[in-house]
Amino acid sequence: MKKDYISPYVIKRLPRYYRFMCDLIEEGKVKISSKELSERMKVTASQIRQDLNHFGEFGNQGYGYNVKRLRKEIEDILGIYKDGKRNSVIIIGAGNMGQAICDDFSFEKRGCALIGIFDKDPELHGKTIAGHKVLSMEELADFCEGNKPDIATLCVPKTSAKSVCEMLIALDVTNFWNFSHFDINVHFENVNVENVHLGDSLFTLLYSMNYEV
Amino acid sequence: MKKDYISPYVIKRLPRYYRFMCDLIEEGKVKISSKELSERMKVTASQIRQDLNHFGEFGNQGYGYNVKRLRKEIEDILGIYKDGKRNSVIIIGAGNMGQAICDDFSFEKRGCALIGIFDKDPELHGKTIAGHKVLSMEELADFCEGNKPDIATLCVPKTSAKSVCEMLIALDVTNFWNFSHFDINVHFENVNVENVHLGDSLFTLLYSMNYEV
Repeated sequence: MKKDYISPYVIKRLPRYYRFMCDLIEEGKVKISSKELSERMKVTASQIRQDLNHFGEFGNQGYGYNVKRLRKEIEDILGIYKDGKRNSVIIIGAGNMGQAICDDFSFEKRGCALIGIFDKDPELHGKTIAGHKVLSMEELADFCEGNKPDIATLCVPKTSAKSVCEMLIALDVTNFWNFSHFDINVHFENVNVENVHLGDSLFTLLYSMNYEV
Repeated sequence: MKKDYISPYVIKRLPRYYRFMCDLIEEGKVKISSKELSERMKVTASQIRQDLNHFGEFGNQGYGYNVKRLRKEIEDILGIYKDGKRNSVIIIGAGNMGQAICDDFSFEKRGCALIGIFDKDPELHGKTIAGHKVLSMEELADFCEGNKPDIATLCVPKTSAKSVCEMLIALDVTNFWNFSHFDINVHFENVNVENVHLGDSLFTLLYSMNYEV
């Protein structure tokens, strides 16, 4: 199997392929041609063949892609279920967004496990969200030492994000799924950050409304 | 001013430039060099010059970019405040995600105005979120006829998304900011859709944790 360089643009597109593979598996599909996948994904068949060329043997012409094997390949490349284990995730901030992610977002389906939720607001402490009691920020240090979370999901306001990051980095949590709009990368070194900027996606919609894209 | 073809990759990056311009204006900055912008954005100066080359005159070497004019240019290209007006937005679904967007997301800052929230759950009707009373789905038709919303934000479960889309499209609402994971594009023609898949962003984080990106 080819394991050569994969361009960042392909990497960015892999999660979408992964979602489609999951849907296909749910529908009981065993294989799919690039033509059919192209129709479902609204991407040209040639783009698909180019993207999935990295998974050489699964894309034999005439046969199509073996859906389960392709999903497994994407899983391995993205590092989902790395070393057979789930990445453990904590959420900091149990406001609206923190609660929405807790309740509506399935970490399990993405090879992760939510293991704790924290908030500084005493009124939320002890409240149960998605099966987890909201803990105080004072409990964060002990929790991290005991549980070594892989990822911190930041759902705190921009203004408190810096001090929360300092705290987490000191506790050796350096992977951030960042909803806070605070620019972690600019202020800290040796961190992995994925920023969620919902506004960027709205802007992209505005653009597509004005031009035929 | 150059108004030639701008590649989709540049377009995708414009919202981020826009955010940084807004921050710079808040800080009172009048101009910025590509070198300084490069340090703040963690993008190479040559990438910045290439991207902003489309805005020719603002990027004179030695002078740097005029922050306000650059922001205005990006606004025009993205279609923010198009024809001097705000795009009107409704939210369908007042669950956790709908509420989080209502409360925490500033449509105003993105050239939009939230004008209505709808949910099918009678328990939510009449409840006020971010200054808007939650309306029933039965009120949607009259509301759309009277107010002609530009954009529908879909915060409904995947299972009810199709019927909601049918309803909206029949009411001439064809621009969707889609949090529902239902593939609108695949089922309907002549719609503008921007999908928010938070899971894709988590996968990108997992990838960056496994490889030095």
